[in-house]
Amino acid sequence: MQSLLSDLPAGAQAAERFEDLLTRPGVRIERIVSSGQSTPTGEWMDQASDEWVLLVAGRAGLTLEGAPPLTLAPGDHLLIPTHRRHRVDWTETPTVWLAVHLGDIS
Amino acid sequence: MQSLLSDLPAGAQAAERFEDLLTRPGVRIERIVSSGQSTPTGEWMDQASDEWVLLVAGRAGLTLEGAPPLTLAPGDHLLIPTHRRHRVDWTETPTVWLAVHLGDIS
Repeated sequence: MQSLLSDLPAGAQAAERFEDLLTRPGVRIERIVSSGQSTPTGEWMDQASDEWVLLVAGRAGLTLEGAPPLTLAPGDHLLIPTHRRHRVDWTETPTVWLAVHLGDIS
Repeated sequence: MQSLLSDLPAGAQAAERFEDLLTRPGVRIERIVSSGQSTPTGEWMDQASDEWVLLVAGRAGLTLEGAPPLTLAPGDHLLIPTHRRHRVDWTETPTVWLAVHLGDIS
């Protein structure tokens, strides 16, 4: 047994931390720990696979292109479809995400 | 956006609640809400697919056959491999689980 809440950074960090928890054909479960990071102004993330994301701890702002900004609290989840442009507007320190990448994740 | 913590029962319920959040070939993401249920004494659960499970809220006792009992708190996760017998010893009311079923989930 492991915990998504273990080994969290105490303060701001230079970079987000990505950790694969389980990988299978067509699915990858990942923990992401943010500590204040956001997507650079004017940039969007655009991914080649579907990503189902759950905010586990902390709080974050997320915008899908063309939609109003969302504030995610623990328990909130959504699907970010393949190539749906999105950005992380802000994150608390620390913020823990669970991401389940689906489909062609090679 | 939805929340794993919305629409929770206020007290004990007759049965656990199961809700598919996302289904794809080889993967099914499910919310399970327990409210005091446990596996009947002397019985084991035995599943035909791998199940990665995360305790989201509440608290629960889980035993894998042949291993010491575990107490799961929010953030705790583990893989229950195919046909690994296990039982839920107890659950708080409410307890919210995220289950990701992997492989042959037909």
